[in-house]
Amino acid sequence: VIILKEKVVHYLDVEAEEVKVEGAKNTRIRWLISDKDGAPNFAMRMFEVDINGCTPLHNHPWEHEIFILNGEAKVKIGDKEYMVKSGYALFIPPNIEHTIINIGNSTLRFLCFIPIKK
Amino acid sequence: VIILKEKVVHYLDVEAEEVKVEGAKNTRIRWLISDKDGAPNFAMRMFEVDINGCTPLHNHPWEHEIFILNGEAKVKIGDKEYMVKSGYALFIPPNIEHTIINIGNSTLRFLCFIPIKK
Repeated sequence: VIILKEKVVHYLDVEAEEVKVEGAKNTRIRWLISDKDGAPNFAMRMFEVDINGCTPLHNHPWEHEIFILNGEAKVKIGDKEYMVKSGYALFIPPNIEHTIINIGNSTLRFLCFIPIKK
Repeated sequence: VIILKEKVVHYLDVEAEEVKVEGAKNTRIRWLISDKDGAPNFAMRMFEVDINGCTPLHNHPWEHEIFILNGEAKVKIGDKEYMVKSGYALFIPPNIEHTIINIGNSTLRFLCFIPIKK
Protein backbone atom coordinates (compact mmCIF):
# COMPACT_ATOMS: atom_id res chain seq x y z
CA VAL A 1 0.00 0.00 0.00
CA ILE A 2 1.36 3.40 -1.00
CA ILE A 3 0.60 6.08 1.58
CA LEU A 4 0.41 9.44 -0.16
CA LYS A 5 1.43 12.55 1.74
CA GLU A 6 -0.43 15.84 1.65
CA LYS A 7 1.21 18.95 0.16
CA VAL A 8 0.61 22.53 1.27
CA VAL A 9 2.65 25.20 -0.49
CA HIS A 10 2.43 28.88 -1.40
CA TYR A 11 2.95 29.42 -5.12
CA LEU A 12 5.83 31.84 -4.50
CA ASP A 13 7.71 28.99 -2.84
CA VAL A 14 7.62 26.95 -6.07
CA GLU A 15 10.25 27.70 -8.70
CA ALA A 16 9.11 29.67 -11.77
CA GLU A 17 10.72 28.08 -14.87
CA GLU A 18 10.90 29.89 -18.20
CA VAL A 19 8.70 28.22 -20.82
CA LYS A 20 11.12 27.53 -23.67
CA VAL A 21 8.68 25.96 -26.13
CA GLU A 22 8.77 27.63 -29.56
CA GLY A 23 6.15 30.37 -29.74
CA ALA A 24 6.07 31.02 -26.00
CA LYS A 25 7.03 34.61 -25.13
CA ASN A 26 7.94 35.91 -21.66
CA THR A 27 6.04 33.10 -19.93
CA ARG A 28 6.95 31.13 -16.82
CA ILE A 29 5.46 27.99 -15.27
CA ARG A 30 5.32 26.77 -11.67
CA TRP A 31 4.40 23.11 -11.16
CA LEU A 32 2.36 23.45 -7.96
CA ILE A 33 1.09 19.84 -7.81
CA SER A 34 2.25 17.02 -10.08
CA ASP A 35 2.93 13.31 -10.26
CA LYS A 36 6.13 14.04 -8.29
CA ASP A 37 3.83 14.82 -5.35
CA GLY A 38 1.91 11.59 -5.88
CA ALA A 39 -1.01 13.28 -7.67
CA PRO A 40 -2.75 10.33 -9.35
CA ASN A 41 -4.89 11.99 -12.01
CA PHE A 42 -4.08 15.62 -12.86
CA ALA A 43 -1.48 18.34 -12.35
CA MET A 44 -1.85 21.96 -11.19
CA ARG A 45 0.42 24.50 -12.83
CA MET A 46 0.54 28.30 -12.51
CA PHE A 47 1.52 30.35 -15.54
CA GLU A 48 2.81 33.91 -15.40
CA VAL A 49 2.85 35.86 -18.63
CA ASP A 50 4.51 39.30 -18.80
CA ILE A 51 2.92 42.27 -20.57
CA ASN A 52 2.73 41.41 -24.29
CA GLY A 53 3.83 37.85 -23.61
CA CYS A 54 1.93 34.75 -24.71
CA THR A 55 1.75 30.99 -24.47
CA PRO A 56 2.52 29.10 -27.69
CA LEU A 57 -0.19 28.61 -30.31
CA HIS A 58 -0.38 24.82 -30.25
CA ASN A 59 -2.62 21.83 -29.82
CA HIS A 60 -2.36 18.41 -28.20
CA PRO A 61 -4.61 15.44 -27.45
CA TRP A 62 -5.39 16.47 -23.84
CA GLU A 63 -7.60 19.13 -22.34
CA HIS A 64 -6.85 22.24 -20.29
CA GLU A 65 -8.90 23.55 -17.39
CA ILE A 66 -7.85 27.12 -16.69
CA PHE A 67 -8.74 29.73 -14.07
CA ILE A 68 -7.63 33.34 -14.52
CA LEU A 69 -6.20 34.79 -11.30
CA ASN A 70 -4.90 38.23 -12.34
CA GLY A 71 -4.58 40.33 -15.45
CA GLU A 72 -6.35 40.41 -18.78
CA ALA A 73 -5.97 37.98 -21.65
CA LYS A 74 -7.12 37.26 -25.15
CA VAL A 75 -7.63 33.51 -25.54
CA LYS A 76 -7.80 31.95 -28.98
CA ILE A 77 -9.46 28.53 -29.15
CA GLY A 78 -9.81 27.21 -32.69
CA ASP A 79 -11.38 30.05 -34.68
CA LYS A 80 -12.89 31.75 -31.60
CA GLU A 81 -11.46 34.58 -29.50
CA TYR A 82 -12.42 35.41 -25.91
CA MET A 83 -11.43 38.33 -23.66
CA VAL A 84 -11.03 37.16 -20.06
CA LYS A 85 -9.82 38.46 -16.72
CA SER A 86 -9.75 37.50 -13.04
CA GLY A 87 -12.54 35.06 -12.18
CA TYR A 88 -12.94 33.38 -15.58
CA ALA A 89 -12.87 29.58 -15.91
CA LEU A 90 -12.03 27.99 -19.27
CA PHE A 91 -12.32 24.48 -20.63
CA ILE A 92 -10.14 23.94 -23.70
CA PRO A 93 -10.98 20.53 -25.23
CA PRO A 94 -8.31 18.18 -26.60
CA ASN A 95 -7.03 18.65 -30.15
CA ILE A 96 -8.00 22.32 -30.57
CA GLU A 97 -5.36 24.94 -31.32
CA HIS A 98 -5.12 27.56 -28.58
CA THR A 99 -3.00 30.41 -27.26
CA ILE A 100 -3.31 32.85 -24.36
CA ILE A 101 -2.03 36.39 -24.90
CA ASN A 102 -1.52 39.01 -22.19
CA ILE A 103 -3.34 42.11 -23.47
CA GLY A 104 -3.38 43.95 -20.12
CA ASN A 105 -1.07 46.36 -18.30
CA SER A 106 0.16 43.89 -15.69
CA THR A 107 1.38 40.33 -15.33
CA LEU A 108 -1.20 37.75 -16.38
CA ARG A 109 -1.42 34.88 -13.93
CA PHE A 110 -3.57 31.76 -14.34
CA LEU A 111 -3.88 28.17 -13.18
CA CYS A 112 -3.84 25.47 -15.86
CA PHE A 113 -4.66 21.83 -15.07
CA ILE A 114 -3.81 18.87 -17.28
CA PRO A 115 -4.34 15.13 -16.94
CA ILE A 116 -1.38 13.02 -15.85
CA LYS A 117 -0.41 10.43 -18.46
CA LYS A 118 -0.53 6.88 -17.09
CA VAL B 1 -16.20 11.18 -33.15
CA ILE B 2 -17.41 13.45 -30.37
CA ILE B 3 -16.44 17.07 -30.92
CA LEU B 4 -16.09 18.78 -27.57
CA LYS B 5 -16.90 22.46 -27.28
CA GLU B 6 -14.87 24.97 -25.33
CA LYS B 7 -16.35 26.72 -22.27
CA VAL B 8 -15.53 30.23 -21.10
CA VAL B 9 -17.46 31.48 -18.07
CA HIS B 10 -17.07 33.92 -15.19
CA TYR B 11 -17.59 32.21 -11.86
CA LEU B 12 -20.34 34.69 -10.89
CA ASP B 13 -22.36 33.45 -13.87
CA VAL B 14 -22.43 29.91 -12.45
CA GLU B 15 -25.06 29.12 -9.82
CA ALA B 16 -23.87 28.86 -6.20
CA GLU B 17 -25.62 25.86 -4.58
CA GLU B 18 -25.76 25.40 -0.82
CA VAL B 19 -23.69 22.40 0.31
CA LYS B 20 -26.19 20.32 2.26
CA VAL B 21 -23.90 17.46 3.30
CA GLU B 22 -23.95 16.83 7.05
CA GLY B 23 -21.18 18.80 8.75
CA ALA B 24 -21.01 21.50 6.09
CA LYS B 25 -21.76 24.98 7.48
CA ASN B 26 -22.54 28.08 5.44
CA THR B 27 -20.76 26.73 2.37
CA ARG B 28 -21.74 27.00 -1.30
CA ILE B 29 -20.37 25.26 -4.39
CA ARG B 30 -20.24 26.38 -8.03
CA TRP B 31 -19.53 23.65 -10.61
CA LEU B 32 -17.41 25.70 -13.04
CA ILE B 33 -16.34 22.79 -15.30
CA SER B 34 -17.68 19.23 -15.06
CA ASP B 35 -18.57 16.14 -17.08
CA LYS B 36 -21.67 18.05 -18.19
CA ASP B 37 -19.29 20.29 -20.18
CA GLY B 38 -17.55 17.27 -21.65
CA ALA B 39 -14.59 17.42 -19.26
CA PRO B 40 -13.03 13.97 -19.65
CA ASN B 41 -10.87 13.65 -16.56
CA PHE B 42 -11.48 16.14 -13.74
CA ALA B 43 -13.93 18.78 -12.52
CA MET B 44 -13.34 22.37 -11.35
CA ARG B 45 -15.51 23.60 -8.51
CA MET B 46 -15.41 26.86 -6.55
CA PHE B 47 -16.33 26.81 -2.88
CA GLU B 48 -17.41 29.85 -0.89
CA VAL B 49 -17.41 29.56 2.88
CA ASP B 50 -18.87 32.34 5.05
CA ILE B 51 -17.15 33.61 8.20
CA ASN B 52 -17.06 30.72 10.73
CA GLY B 53 -18.36 28.32 8.09
CA CYS B 54 -16.66 25.05 7.14
CA THR B 55 -16.68 22.14 4.74
CA PRO B 56 -17.61 18.77 6.28
CA LEU B 57 -14.98 16.69 8.07
CA HIS B 58 -15.01 13.64 5.81
CA ASN B 59 -12.93 11.34 3.69
CA HIS B 60 -13.33 9.53 0.37
CA PRO B 61 -11.23 7.44 -2.02
CA TRP B 62 -10.34 10.34 -4.36
CA GLU B 63 -7.95 13.25 -4.05
CA HIS B 64 -8.50 17.01 -3.90
CA GLU B 65 -6.33 19.64 -5.52
CA ILE B 66 -7.18 23.01 -3.99
CA PHE B 67 -6.09 26.60 -4.62
CA ILE B 68 -7.01 29.32 -2.12
CA LEU B 69 -8.30 32.46 -3.87
CA ASN B 70 -9.40 34.72 -0.99
CA GLY B 71 -9.67 34.63 2.77
CA GLU B 72 -7.97 32.64 5.50
CA ALA B 73 -8.53 29.02 6.41
CA LYS B 74 -7.50 26.33 8.81
CA VAL B 75 -7.19 23.05 6.93
CA LYS B 76 -7.17 19.75 8.83
CA ILE B 77 -5.70 16.80 6.94
CA GLY B 78 -5.51 13.64 9.03
CA ASP B 79 -3.81 14.71 12.29
CA LYS B 80 -2.15 17.79 10.73
CA GLU B 81 -3.39 21.39 10.71
CA TYR B 82 -2.31 24.11 8.26
CA MET B 83 -3.09 27.83 8.14
CA VAL B 84 -3.50 29.00 4.54
CA LYS B 85 -4.58 32.07 2.62
CA SER B 86 -4.64 33.44 -0.94
CA GLY B 87 -1.97 31.82 -3.10
CA TYR B 88 -1.71 28.45 -1.34
CA ALA B 89 -2.00 25.18 -3.27
CA LEU B 90 -2.99 21.98 -1.44
CA PHE B 91 -2.92 18.32 -2.40
CA ILE B 92 -5.18 16.21 -0.18
CA PRO B 93 -4.56 12.52 -0.94
CA PRO B 94 -7.37 9.96 -1.16
CA ASN B 95 -8.68 8.33 2.03
CA ILE B 96 -7.52 11.02 4.48
CA GLU B 97 -10.04 12.83 6.67
CA HIS B 98 -10.09 16.57 5.98
CA THR B 99 -12.01 19.79 6.60
CA ILE B 100 -11.53 23.44 5.66
CA ILE B 101 -12.62 26.06 8.18
CA ASN B 102 -12.94 29.79 7.52
CA ILE B 103 -10.96 31.45 10.32
CA GLY B 104 -10.76 34.89 8.69
CA ASN B 105 -12.91 38.03 8.66
CA SER B 106 -14.21 37.63 5.11
CA THR B 107 -15.63 35.02 2.77
CA LEU B 108 -13.22 32.17 2.07
CA ARG B 109 -13.11 31.27 -1.61
CA PHE B 110 -11.15 28.37 -3.12
CA LEU B 111 -11.02 26.13 -6.16
CA CYS B 112 -11.25 22.38 -5.55
CA PHE B 113 -10.61 19.85 -8.34
CA ILE B 114 -11.68 16.20 -8.24
CA PRO B 115 -11.33 13.34 -10.71
CA ILE B 116 -14.38 12.42 -12.77
CA LYS B 117 -15.52 8.84 -12.13
CA LYS B 118 -15.60 6.75 -15.27
